[in-house]
Amino acid sequence: MRARFVTFEGIEGVGKSTQVAHAAAHLRRRGVEPCLTREPGGTPLAETVRRLVLDRDGEPLAPGTEALLIFAARAAHVANLIAPALGRGQWVLCDRFTDASEAYQGAGRGISREQIAALAHLAHPGLDPDLTLLLDAPVDVALARAARRQAAADRFEAEDRAFFERVRARYLEIAGREPARV
Amino acid sequence: MRARFVTFEGIEGVGKSTQVAHAAAHLRRRGVEPCLTREPGGTPLAETVRRLVLDRDGEPLAPGTEALLIFAARAAHVANLIAPALGRGQWVLCDRFTDASEAYQGAGRGISREQIAALAHLAHPGLDPDLTLLLDAPVDVALARAARRQAAADRFEAEDRAFFERVRARYLEIAGREPARV
Repeated sequence: MRARFVTFEGIEGVGKSTQVAHAAAHLRRRGVEPCLTREPGGTPLAETVRRLVLDRDGEPLAPGTEALLIFAARAAHVANLIAPALGRGQWVLCDRFTDASEAYQGAGRGISREQIAALAHLAHPGLDPDLTLLLDAPVDVALARAARRQAAADRFEAEDRAFFERVRARYLEIAGREPARV
Repeated sequence: MRARFVTFEGIEGVGKSTQVAHAAAHLRRRGVEPCLTREPGGTPLAETVRRLVLDRDGEPLAPGTEALLIFAARAAHVANLIAPALGRGQWVLCDRFTDASEAYQGAGRGISREQIAALAHLAHPGLDPDLTLLLDAPVDVALARAARRQAAADRFEAEDRAFFERVRARYLEIAGREPARV
């Protein structure tokens, strides 16, 4: 069984962390120890960038700045963690990847599909997930769940319902467009 | 006299800081108080990114990661410092801008011209310097000067002579291509 790169996508509160844990337990029962990681983040540099992106009290972020930071973190994550793990034959389970950028920075913030594709090509040329599990729930239900578990909202969680409706709709569009992967 | 965006370019040790100071003194004698800034950096977020880029002991940076970080810092710098200063009629004198990315990340690290142009379009759509002063010196002379003033080399200063020859050649190419600005 060759190592696979599996991503978990969906808006806040749909249960991604729970499903990552289930998938990891399933693999371990079959004797496979996966690498578990998340975005933005996954390496020390990428975690520093994560704080810059998520901190609501930080400097204002224009949509282009946010997209550049997210893809910079992703490029470091791929080069320094994901690609080396896959290269040594380890499965990688990742909470969010470039589909999240198409949904959040693209549909959410208004960065064009062409710009997202160009950034993806620069950050991880030739690497796409083998399988993506998209978890879906109505925005009201998901946000109510997310709100119950966190004290303070980050920059995304502070967005309004219309933002998350656009994000969810783009996720469903990606799933319809790429049924073999998602 | 409308406010202008003036950038200073060139490899390490050519005297950019000295010329920024001269230009600022010249403007002040004419009653203009300029905004002095530098790249990568210029805002708290961009200075954090600067440290990630320059720290030789930090996480390894692939060429794409470095370019994304530099342009993320630039996007924040433009949105939160340069554009507001120009908007209120203040001159901006900036030590390095996107020409440096074409020279260092492009000619130095191998990022294509098209990718640099796409990143520039995302980071600062519609904003280009009114005037760019390119300072030039033979690589040997400039690096010897740079070495005398600093104890520890950053990621760029640790590069070899061939790297700086490529950077210098691209700077001269830009000056030849855009004589009205540079």
